[in-house]
Formats: sequence, C-alpha cells, structure tokens
Amino acid sequence: MKEALKLVVIGGGSSYTPELIEGVIKHHAELPVGEVWLVDIEEGREKLRIITELSKRMVEKSGLPIKVYETLNRREAIAEADFVCTQIRVGMLEARKHDELIPLKYNVIGQETTGPGGMMKGLRTIPVILDICKDIEELAPDAWLLNFTNPAGMVTEAVHKYSSVRSVGLCNSPIGFQKWLMGFFKLPAERIYAEFVGINHLHWVSDVVIDGQSKLQELIDYPQSYKASNVPFDGWSHRFLDSLKAIPSYYLSYYYMTEDLLREQQEAARTTGSRAEVVKKVEEELFQLYRNVELKEKPKQLEQRGGAYYSEAAVLLMRSIHNDSRDIQTLNVRNGKTIDFLPEDASIEVNCIVTKQGPLPIPLRKIPASVRGLLAAVKQYESLTIDAAVRGDRQTALQAMAHHPLVPTVSIAEQLLDEMLEQNKQYLPLFH
Amino acid sequence: MKEALKLVVIGGGSSYTPELIEGVIKHHAELPVGEVWLVDIEEGREKLRIITELSKRMVEKSGLPIKVYETLNRREAIAEADFVCTQIRVGMLEARKHDELIPLKYNVIGQETTGPGGMMKGLRTIPVILDICKDIEELAPDAWLLNFTNPAGMVTEAVHKYSSVRSVGLCNSPIGFQKWLMGFFKLPAERIYAEFVGINHLHWVSDVVIDGQSKLQELIDYPQSYKASNVPFDGWSHRFLDSLKAIPSYYLSYYYMTEDLLREQQEAARTTGSRAEVVKKVEEELFQLYRNVELKEKPKQLEQRGGAYYSEAAVLLMRSIHNDSRDIQTLNVRNGKTIDFLPEDASIEVNCIVTKQGPLPIPLRKIPASVRGLLAAVKQYESLTIDAAVRGDRQTALQAMAHHPLVPTVSIAEQLLDEMLEQNKQYLPLFH
Amino acid sequence: MKEALKLVVIGGGSSYTPELIEGVIKHHAELPVGEVWLVDIEEGREKLRIITELSKRMVEKSGLPIKVYETLNRREAIAEADFVCTQIRVGMLEARKHDELIPLKYNVIGQETTGPGGMMKGLRTIPVILDICKDIEELAPDAWLLNFTNPAGMVTEAVHKYSSVRSVGLCNSPIGFQKWLMGFFKLPAERIYAEFVGINHLHWVSDVVIDGQSKLQELIDYPQSYKASNVPFDGWSHRFLDSLKAIPSYYLSYYYMTEDLLREQQEAARTTGSRAEVVKKVEEELFQLYRNVELKEKPKQLEQRGGAYYSEAAVLLMRSIHNDSRDIQTLNVRNGKTIDFLPEDASIEVNCIVTKQGPLPIPLRKIPASVRGLLAAVKQYESLTIDAAVRGDRQTALQAMAHHPLVPTVSIAEQLLDEMLEQNKQYLPLFH
Amino acid sequence: MKEALKLVVIGGGSSYTPELIEGVIKHHAELPVGEVWLVDIEEGREKLRIITELSKRMVEKSGLPIKVYETLNRREAIAEADFVCTQIRVGMLEARKHDELIPLKYNVIGQETTGPGGMMKGLRTIPVILDICKDIEELAPDAWLLNFTNPAGMVTEAVHKYSSVRSVGLCNSPIGFQKWLMGFFKLPAERIYAEFVGINHLHWVSDVVIDGQSKLQELIDYPQSYKASNVPFDGWSHRFLDSLKAIPSYYLSYYYMTEDLLREQQEAARTTGSRAEVVKKVEEELFQLYRNVELKEKPKQLEQRGGAYYSEAAVLLMRSIHNDSRDIQTLNVRNGKTIDFLPEDASIEVNCIVTKQGPLPIPLRKIPASVRGLLAAVKQYESLTIDAAVRGDRQTALQAMAHHPLVPTVSIAEQLLDEMLEQNKQYLPLFH
Repeated sequence: MKEALKLVVIGGGSSYTPELIEGVIKHHAELPVGEVWLVDIEEGREKLRIITELSKRMVEKSGLPIKVYETLNRREAIAEADFVCTQIRVGMLEARKHDELIPLKYNVIGQETTGPGGMMKGLRTIPVILDICKDIEELAPDAWLLNFTNPAGMVTEAVHKYSSVRSVGLCNSPIGFQKWLMGFFKLPAERIYAEFVGINHLHWVSDVVIDGQSKLQELIDYPQSYKASNVPFDGWSHRFLDSLKAIPSYYLSYYYMTEDLLREQQEAARTTGSRAEVVKKVEEELFQLYRNVELKEKPKQLEQRGGAYYSEAAVLLMRSIHNDSRDIQTLNVRNGKTIDFLPEDASIEVNCIVTKQGPLPIPLRKIPASVRGLLAAVKQYESLTIDAAVRGDRQTALQAMAHHPLVPTVSIAEQLLDEMLEQNKQYLPLFH
Repeated sequence: MKEALKLVVIGGGSSYTPELIEGVIKHHAELPVGEVWLVDIEEGREKLRIITELSKRMVEKSGLPIKVYETLNRREAIAEADFVCTQIRVGMLEARKHDELIPLKYNVIGQETTGPGGMMKGLRTIPVILDICKDIEELAPDAWLLNFTNPAGMVTEAVHKYSSVRSVGLCNSPIGFQKWLMGFFKLPAERIYAEFVGINHLHWVSDVVIDGQSKLQELIDYPQSYKASNVPFDGWSHRFLDSLKAIPSYYLSYYYMTEDLLREQQEAARTTGSRAEVVKKVEEELFQLYRNVELKEKPKQLEQRGGAYYSEAAVLLMRSIHNDSRDIQTLNVRNGKTIDFLPEDASIEVNCIVTKQGPLPIPLRKIPASVRGLLAAVKQYESLTIDAAVRGDRQTALQAMAHHPLVPTVSIAEQLLDEMLEQNKQYLPLFH
Repeated sequence: MKEALKLVVIGGGSSYTPELIEGVIKHHAELPVGEVWLVDIEEGREKLRIITELSKRMVEKSGLPIKVYETLNRREAIAEADFVCTQIRVGMLEARKHDELIPLKYNVIGQETTGPGGMMKGLRTIPVILDICKDIEELAPDAWLLNFTNPAGMVTEAVHKYSSVRSVGLCNSPIGFQKWLMGFFKLPAERIYAEFVGINHLHWVSDVVIDGQSKLQELIDYPQSYKASNVPFDGWSHRFLDSLKAIPSYYLSYYYMTEDLLREQQEAARTTGSRAEVVKKVEEELFQLYRNVELKEKPKQLEQRGGAYYSEAAVLLMRSIHNDSRDIQTLNVRNGKTIDFLPEDASIEVNCIVTKQGPLPIPLRKIPASVRGLLAAVKQYESLTIDAAVRGDRQTALQAMAHHPLVPTVSIAEQLLDEMLEQNKQYLPLFH
Repeated sequence: MKEALKLVVIGGGSSYTPELIEGVIKHHAELPVGEVWLVDIEEGREKLRIITELSKRMVEKSGLPIKVYETLNRREAIAEADFVCTQIRVGMLEARKHDELIPLKYNVIGQETTGPGGMMKGLRTIPVILDICKDIEELAPDAWLLNFTNPAGMVTEAVHKYSSVRSVGLCNSPIGFQKWLMGFFKLPAERIYAEFVGINHLHWVSDVVIDGQSKLQELIDYPQSYKASNVPFDGWSHRFLDSLKAIPSYYLSYYYMTEDLLREQQEAARTTGSRAEVVKKVEEELFQLYRNVELKEKPKQLEQRGGAYYSEAAVLLMRSIHNDSRDIQTLNVRNGKTIDFLPEDASIEVNCIVTKQGPLPIPLRKIPASVRGLLAAVKQYESLTIDAAVRGDRQTALQAMAHHPLVPTVSIAEQLLDEMLEQNKQYLPLFH
C-alpha cells in the first residue's frame, strides 16, 4: 500500500478548506495523507494564499507529516493524485446572486441548487468539471473524484455519463440528518439506520430503524423536525407527513410549500438581500479571521457559514475507500437498478456500502408510494440540463426549464431562460 | 359465430346515445348488433325514455333487425351481453359544476378531468364502475367493456387492477386528431400513421408518418395546430414545440399554459358560468329536440356538444374486436412494457393493434425526451387516486392531491381536499 | 414515390433465385421492381451467368418492365438500392459438409444452423455480411436489408449491433407453419393468428387463435404435427406437448430428442452422406435444368430443394414495407422489451406489424413457462458467437461452444473448437 | 432487547447438531441464546435422544445459562421462537440413495441436489417446509427461518413465494471458499472480497479483491483450485477458466465435465456404493461416538462428514441479524433486481449486507458474460419444480425434468420422472 496519500482540492481557496484540513488532521491515523495540494484560478490567488498559510499553520500545530502546496497549475496538482475534491463556484457569489434574484421577478423560487437558479449553476459548472475530469483521466486515472460542487447530483451524473473518472457526489444534508437523529435518540451513528430515497437535494427518509424497530411514526409525530441553517423553513404539516409516511428533505419545502418560501425569499430580497449577498459578508469576515497569523485552527465562526459536516462526509468517505471499510454512507452514485423507474445512468442519493472499489448502492426496502412522480419529474429536468450543458443546446435547455415542476408555464420558462442565459453569458461559452 | 350481438349501454339516457345508435346502424353489416339495451338509474328515467323512443325511431327508419330495450334493471341488461359501454356521470352535471368551480377559488385549474376536478370525478366514478364490473363478471364474463366514462384513463386502470372484466378505455381525442390530419393532408386514415405516447388526456404525438416520411416538423411549423371545441385554447409557442419535437394534446395546455387557462376559466366563471352550466343548457336544448316524434336521426346540433367521434371510436373498436380486424387504433390499455418508466399495470393511451382477443399495444418508436417526468408525475397521482377511491382512504387522497402537478402547495391541497370531499359527500360513501 | 424499385440480390447465383424472380413478377403490381441486380463473387461467376439468363427469360415471358443485371461488382449493384437481399454461403456446400460431419465424430449434433455447425457458419458469415453493410451504409443508406442468410438470427443480431443498416431477418419456417395451418383448418391466412415466441430456429407457437378461440389443444392432440423436408424428424411425444402447452419448431427436436436425431445423422453420414452432399447433387441437377434455354419459369423440382416459401416471405415483406401495409408477419427483429428476460439488443423471431418504417414486434400474450431457460441459454451462446466473430476472439468462441446446450462437456468443446477453427482456416481471417 | 433468545432446530436429531451447539456456545456473548429446542419426528426419536444428551453435556461443560429441550411436538417448540433452523431430510438417506442411483441407470448424473436427484429431494421437501412455515406464521411470526435443508435454493424460493415467514437460505459452499481464500492469501476474512454470482449450488466467483486489487487472474492461474470433500472432482481446464474469467463452484463440474463425473459416479456405485450409503456408515460411526457419555464436545470425526462450516455460517448469520451488524455474508435471498435476467421472486446466492431486518443483496459489479444462459436454464427448472411440488402437478414436473440441462432428451425425462415419482410415492402425497 502506498505510504502517503496525495489529496488535491480544486477550489482550494474556498472558505470551507480549513474544515477539510481539520478533518485530514483528525483522521490521519486511518487516512495517511502526505500531501495536500490546494488549487485555484487566477481570480482566487489572494484567497488561496490566505487559506494555504492557515492550513500550513494548522498542520504545523498538529505535528503530522503532511505537506501543504498551493498552485494555480491544476495539472501539476492532479498528477498522481489519490483523491481529488472539487469545491468550485463558477462565477462566484456574484453569479449566485443572479441565480437567486432573477427567478423572483417571475414569482419563481430563486435558489442556489433548486429551480432555475440551480439549472444555471449546472450549466456553468458541468463543462468546467468535465474539463477537470479530462486532466484526471490523463494524469491520475486511478484517483477518486469527490465532488462537493453543487448542484452535486447533476455534476456527478455528468461525470458518470461523460467521463471515465471514478467519482462520488457528496452532500452534507444526509449526514446532517444523521447527526440530528443521534442527538434525538442519544445513540451512536451505527445504532441508527435511516433509509434515504431520492436524488441530491430531493430525498425522503423512508424509514429510521433502531435495533430492528421502525421509529418513523415517532419522528413524524415529533412536532419539530430538523432544520438546516441555510434553508428558511418552519415545519411540515403533520397531517401531510402522516399520510406521506416519510420525512422529506428540507429542500422539499421548495416543492411542498412553494408559495410560503417564495414570499419569504421575496421579502428577504427586499430587506437583507439575496442569500448570496449574506454569504458574501460572512465570507469576508471569515477571511478577515483567516488572515490572523495567530490562528492555527478552524475558527468557530465557520460553522455558521452553512454546509456543516461537508468535510466530515468527505474525510469519512476517503477513509472508507482507502481502508475498504464496507460501512454505510449516504452518497450520490449511479442508479443502476436501485430506483427502478429512473434511468440506470441517473445519479441518485441513497445509502451505499463503501468498499475500496467505491460505493455500492444498497437495495431500497421501500419507496414511498406518492413521491415517484416528483422524483421522476425533477430527474428528467436534471438529465435535460446535463444534456444542454454538455452541448450548449438552447432547445434542450428550454425543455429542461419548461418541464421543471417549479416553473409554472412555458412562456415564463422562455423568458427566464433568455434572461438568465444572457446574464451568464461569460460563463457559458458553449451557448454563445 | 353468434348471429346477433347484444350491446348494453350503461348511462343510456345520455344525450350522446343517438350518435352511438347512428353508428350501430351505419356499421351493421360488419357489426351485426341485434339488441341494444339502454340502462339508466331512477333519476334518469325520463331522459332514458326520451332517448329510447328516439333510438327506436332511428332503428325503424333504418329497416334493420335491431331491437332497442330500456331498463332500470342493470343486471337484466348485462346478462349475456357481448359489449357493454359505460357513459355514466355520477353526480351529474351538478357535481361537475363544483369540480370546476371550487379549484378556481384557490387559483387552481378547475376542469372536468384534469386536476382536482378530475380527481373528484375519479373518486365518485370508480366504485360505481367496479360495481358494474361485478355484474359483468357474474352475468357476462366474456363481454367486452368499452369505457367512455371520464376520467377514462383512471377508470380503465381501476378495472384492470380490481376486476377480471376485459376492458378498453376510449377517448375521442386521438380520433379527433386523426380526423384533423386527414383533412390537413387530404388523405385517408390508413395512409397516415400518428404515434401517440402518453396517458388519457395527457398524450403527445411523437411523430406523424406518411408514406414512410416524417411530417412532424411540417406540423410543428404549421401556425395553427388543431383545436377542440371543448378546450379553450389558442395555440402553442412555436419555439417550445420546435424544441419539444412532438405535438402535445390540447389537454396539455393546462400544464404548459396554466396561468393563461386559469385566467380564462376564472373570467368564464364570472360571465358565462362553468362549462358544466353551459353544457347543461345545451343538453336541455338537445332533449327538447329529441322529444320531437318526427325526429328520426341524430340532430346536427349534437355535434356542438363536444365529444365528437366518441361513438365512431366505439363502433370501430367493437367492429375490429368482433371481426379480428387487426387494424390500428389509439386506445387506453394496460401498459405492460410499452412505456418502461411507468408501472406495468398502469393504463396508457397508445396505438394498438385490435384483435379478437383485444387490443395489443404497439411498441413506441420514440418517447420525447422531456415528457417522461410530467407523464410519471400525473400517472403517480392517478394511481394514488385509484387507490384512494377503492379504499375510501383520505390519507392517500391527500397524497394524490398534494402531488398533482397543478396543485401548488400542500396547504392548498389540504383545503381543496376537505372542501371537495365535503361537497361530494353523498357520492362518496366509502369516505364518509 | 419512386417510380421503380431497385432490388439487389447478393448471392444472386444461388439456385433459389428463380423463386425470388417468380415472386417479383407475381407481385409486380404492388411492388414495382424496375431493376434486379444479381451479384456474386468470382467463384460463382458461372452459376451467376446461368441464373441471370434464366431470370431474363422469365422476365421477358412476363412482359413486365423489369431489367435484370449481373455483376461481380457489389458496390455498383448496391448504389441507390431500395432493397438488398443476402443469400450467401461463405465456404459453399463444402464448408457446410464439415460443419455437419465434424461434430458427429464427437457424438454431437452436426447441423447447418444448430450446434457447433451453426456456430462455424456464424463465424464465417458475420464478417462478410458486416462488410456488405458497410457498402450499404455508404451507397444506399435508406435501403432495407433482407437477410435470408443463415444463421439468420445471429446474422441479423450482428447487423443490428454493428451497423446502422435497416435490416430484417427472414426464415421460411414460420411461413411454412402458417401454410400448414391454412391447409389444416382450410382457412385463409388472415383468419388464423399463430403466436410465435422465440428466436430463429428455436421458436415455439404458444397459441393458434381462430375467430377468437384458441385451437392450441386441438393441434397438440392432432397426432402428426407439421414437418419440413429438410429436418429428419418423426413426431413429438404427445404427453410432452400436452404439458408444454405449445408447439415447438421442428428445429427444437435437436434439443428435445437429441439422441434420436444424433443416431439418424450418424446413420445418414455412413450411408447417404451429409445433408450438404445431398444438397450438392440436387443443386447440380437444378443447374442442369436452368441451363435449358427453353426454360422460362421456375422449375417444379426447385420445391424439393427445401427452403420453400423463402421467396414468398421476402416478397411479402418488401411489399408491406413499400406500401406501409401494417399486416402481421413473423420476422427476426431487435427484441426491445418483447421478451423481457433476453437482452434488448438480441434478435428474436416473433410476430410483427410491418410498416413503412419497418417491422414492430407485437407484445406476446404468453410465453410458455418452461422454455425461458433454453431460450436464454441458446441466445447466450449466440451473443457470444457474434462477439467472437466480430473480434476473431478464440476465448469468447470457447465460451460460446462450451455453453451451447448441445455440447456436453468443456473438454469436447475445446476439441471441437480447435478442429473446426482449423478446418475453416481460410474463411476465418480474423482468427488466424 | 429480549434477554435470552429461543433457538429451534427442526431435524434436531441430525448428526450435524453438535457443530451448531458448539457454535452457539462459542458465540454466546454476541448471540445470547437461552433455550435450544431440538425437534424431530417419531422415526428420529432415538437419534434425537442421543443428540440431546450430548448437547446437554456440551452446554454443561461450557457453564453457560443455556437450556436444551427435546420434543416431537413441533408447535410447542416453535412458539415464540427467535430463530428456527431447518435441517431435515425427508425420506432420510434411503431416499437419497435412490435419488443418486436411479439417474445413473439412464446415464444421467445422480446427485443429492443437482439434476433429477435434486428435483426429487425438492418435491419431497418443499411441502414439509411450507408446513413448518405455517406453524411459524401462526406461533412465531417475528422469527427468522434459517434454512440449511437442501436443495436450499429451491426451498428458500418456495418459502418466499408461498409464505410470509422471514427466511434466509444457507449453504456452506461460499463460506468454504472464503476459508480457502483466507488460507491461500494468509489474510483475515474482512480483507478479502469475493463476489459471488448465481444461485445455490450453481454460482461463480466473478472476482476476488484484496486491498482494491483484483486477484482473479492469479487464482485462475493457480494450478489446483479449491476442492470440497463431498464432490469428487479433480480440477478445471485452465484454458476454460482463463476464457470464463470467473471461478465456478465445484458443483458446476456436473455441468462442465458431465461425462467424467458420470463415469466416476457409475464406477463408485459399482464399488463403494452411492454417496448416501457411504454417508450412512459415517453417520452410524458418529452416533456410536455421540453415545459415549464421556464425550462433552463435538468430535473431530464430524468434520469428515462434509458440510463443514454449516453451523459457523448459521451462527454468524443469527449473530449479525441479532446485532444489526451490517457485515457481508453470502446468502440465498430473493433476487429483486440483483440479477436482471432472472425473475424478481427467484432465490439467488450472492453477497448480502446483513441487518436486523434481514440480508440485503449487494449489487453485482460484473456477471461473467457466458454464464447467463446456464443460470437462467437451471433457475427455470427450479421454478418449475417448486410449482410442481406445491401443486403435485405431474405435467409441470415433466417440464422441469425435460428442461433440466443435464437431462438429455424428453423420452429419458419421461422415464426418469415415472420411475422416480413411483419410488418416492410415500413421500409425495400430493402426487398420488
């Protein structure tokens, strides 16, 4: 077995990186990372420098034999990598702001990963990730690509469809729910089995089993289900959950409570600004902290940034792949036969057993009867979006937009598409 | 082969019946009907009498050896039938009025077969049809059930799922489009092959082939596609159809142009009243005509009633089954493997080859890439509705309502369901 | 529509050609063939000349505006063809002789299309047919390829898998059974519906329906089922058919009565010689007749050659494609979802509805419960053989041979493969 | 959690029971068995007494709080059981003798679980197991049934199809291969991942992965693959395995080397007698040992009996279910979508992750291309046999026998069936 692993972080200048570094340090015994390469683009040079310095201080404090490198030369970094993590944001927070605000003008949900905003993010991001994959295919064909980059489901599906790179998509939402369950039941993770059914940012928990007994009804009857700081959402209709017989991801509130969330978004846009703008301020404050040469650990304030547990999910996955641990994790993988009404090459988000050769999806015990349609509809939109992104095809993009369940009519789809493609012009060379 | 066939019409007092009688007379050479039994319920006794008298006059004029019977005793009629047609309306036009008007209050499409209105019609109708099926199973197990009763797709699926009766669902929409194509191309039906993909009132024509050549693009580029008198709709976006690469059924305008149609419906409700109220007046005028003892044929005015070609579709189907004609007709049948992302026991509306043993769906050449999601979502709602109807289950009904693509939020679904179930109380004994 | 069709016959020097010419003349009204191009290779120059002369005399006698051409230049012939028929025999009857005799030495069935002999014929033929397909792709991309060349199932599957040519496989066995049924029931073809389930030379008739009534049991109980002159076979066990609830193709006797047929073959090899040798003599006599310049029609003696109705099947298929007839024919086509336990890209032999855009398989009503395994096993062998043929891969060829249900052990498979590949050396350049 | 578990052994008088008791003692910490109920029938009363006495002495020596009960009252034993193990032999070794010897007369493999012998064992056993299941459904609906009884695949499938009992089929063959691999690679089990593809007694190992690297080719190239004492078999053709790209179960030698094994069996029958007769003697010797009141542990000689690791497999499975261990074991379970060309309700033998709610099959990475046909054919025979067993249907039994790949012709199938059904008359009440 190789002595020391090479880990590459594309988008290394992200404010999240210190969390990942913390995880790498913490799990070094089981995941012997020897080199961490932080890669970014010219526009991120300054942030990359700040993050690299902080990372070096953290590693130094740990006393572990880990070297941290910074580079703008992606190919140099990727060569012979063992793991490549991508956490990029094409167009940065400025592009996100428009993803969030333009739909609101048409009374359509404006969100980073769901609806027209997520579609634009997909169109911008997929060609860039596939470009990275070409480098990995050439320079590190045995590497694993861990994709955190949103929209993680579509990006992962695009990689499966258009590249030979071994890849897994990661989201912090399932691990977040697991953590919430651990607190609720006061039990360690391995005592709780939560079955996830769905796709990224559109999953349902169809059962929670402890010691062979289903706890689903107990959770449905519990008045306040779990929340996430970055989704403004206030609780489900008990009557609805009771008949659904599953717990929806909080992202499903965009579908099940569209009007409430739309009103909240429009109100927020008028007052505090878009979520992108809020995040921009948080980021500035974080980098202010990171610059402090006395800081030698991840600052507490990072936790408020949203995206908690991202790095934990990533480190646990690398550890299990590296050690052939065969434990269960909730990941974004190729469907195969798991969800029989979705295409085999679709990406889905389900429990997997993680082996050295990658994650294998575990057969689902039950799929809630009523969610098949919505799941199929959103996956259809995703497949069309991927297709449009790869070919820069406006016709397919219109079909994707018009068939998204949150876009109410074809005429609005046409207007949204035109305005958003124009806004994203510089990031969509294939379309222009 | 049996000398003379016995045809039973459940809902014989319908204003449509004269059209069916006309068809039976016209095709007598190939479909030797000897007896027509018109069945209705107590509330329809008067209409039944009027229709029976008119039918007798029509038959008499034809000089054919056909006997027309009227009865309120359904079992007597069904015994040893060859064909049973159902054209019933549980709750009559009064119930339809509420199906159409209640959703409008919530800014939701109010329509006879699509959306919450169609759901209520399904809940009222399915148990009654299954009750008829029990009689057929017992008294005429070899009979064919031709179901015209809306929502025809759900009713047909319910019969396939819960009864052993041999059954086909019929709609006038596909034959209507065929007729329009015949006029457009000035060619007989057998020279034109239109491929239908979808389910009842939610289909797309994925191709039109004449003499081996696709005419799809020509049709897409033609400025005014076909219309139907009973759907207030003014034309598709050419840009949208051009990227869809299919021609949607006019019922799809409820999904693709929701807001426009909602406005039209709300405007109409304020001025001319609901469609049910319009139809009520037309019906009264028709029965006025029918009463005239000099009338010995189907009056021209019936054609304005909507539902043109219903009887032609029915007579052609009976003729092809009777003669093992093996011609192609567009029918509602069990899916099997035809549309691979829908359940095998779903009803779908596709081209079939009609044999003595019933229609066999012909494999589809192509399914437009972008419609799979919407198709799956509506079929999911239909399956839930059937399940709810059979068991009188409010929880499942809520899931159906909440997951209907035209119902925007869960809270509206809850309110709509409560109000509509209450309104339909007397027709939903299983729910109350 | 094109005025006159161009028909190309690859292997035009075959003794069967006069039958095809007869068919073309007979159906000229519905299939307006203007040119027939007979193509052969250098070794067949003499036979090609004889056949061409006879064909010209036949056409002249008919008075129809058909021109007959002969050529050794395949590409010249194929250019702008409407239909291309292939009836080639790579290695000629000499190769067939070894296909039949070598397996007998190992106590294995020696037959032209079934078992190791069929496998060798497949290995020899598939690359040649794919080569022809390349010419069609280039020179006549809209042409239909009608493949009569055995093993027709494997050849058709290879074309579907490795070429874009529109292709159908044809066998005279289904039409032969249809003719037998017409005689037995004294009814025209369109009154009888026989459902075929399976693959080429391995099908079962799962039902025969006349006027909506199944006649299957009557046929099973009939003491002598149909025979074909070229399969030495004497009748099924009634007890077996009665429990099978289907009528097997006569080729299935090689599987169901292996030992009896093996004994007959070994006896025949000792006395009359292999079937190839018998055919060789028949062919010589036929060409003797063909040379007669007074002969202006297909001689009666051709019917004894075996392969009756081949040309009828071909002309009927061309006619239905040309006229978009939408009638039902039993053909070798891509499986799709028709037989759900076989791969979608497998060729199967089932009833199809023949349209201008080609045949569409009709869904099967029932598949006899007990035949799935044998069907899957033989199809598996076929897929492996196609794969081996295309790549010249000995390992895959060994797997095909070893898993053929008629090859009893791996060690015999190894010996058979070695001896037969060596024998066929000159016809298997990819393997040597 | 329940304090102490109740374990029931149907067929408790089997010579294997001491091994199971040993396992229960050894794993008591993780599997707290409090009661072991040994059940047998009147004919086994004496053996049951001997086994019970020995078991009590073993438990006493261990000092653990386990009570051992003996009973002929199956229902008393089953009531409120946690685990029920079945290890019965309907007709005892005398019936097995005929299973082995009758086919040899027809030059057909005579074996306990493979071929006509296995079929008869299935017909005798399935109704008895289903009878036991009725008791479990009534008296211990939450119990897990662990079925060791051969033919384990068919028996397990029958239970899945005709009972609601939660059931798993167990075979010692996969664990035996795992043990061999551990010795070969000198590594603990959790470091080796062997992928099993197939059904009981007909599986292939498609890959063996250690630390992420495939060791398959190394194993194929190793001259002597593993053996089992109860299958007389001397080694595979390297050339064959090299092209198969998988390692077949030793039971596959009956299919791949039929003639060699048939000769060995016929020779053995003439000299040492059938395997049943050999086993009978071993059993007598074992019971001689068991009677010794000084014996307080499993005697070494039991290991020569064959069936090594049976009890280890059973105890490991119970332990993992009880503790929700989520480790990987190779088990016989319902197929679902795992092997896509087999029916969903077929039993298959594959790697599973074992949870408190039972084993979930892990998706297969690869299925060797050439084995699909044989797998489908044997599974088809198994399904037919189960169907025949449950209904006592001779026609279906004939189809099963005739379509078994080791039965060469229909006429031999008919004779074998008649003679073997007659021989088994007293154990097949449904057939007589």
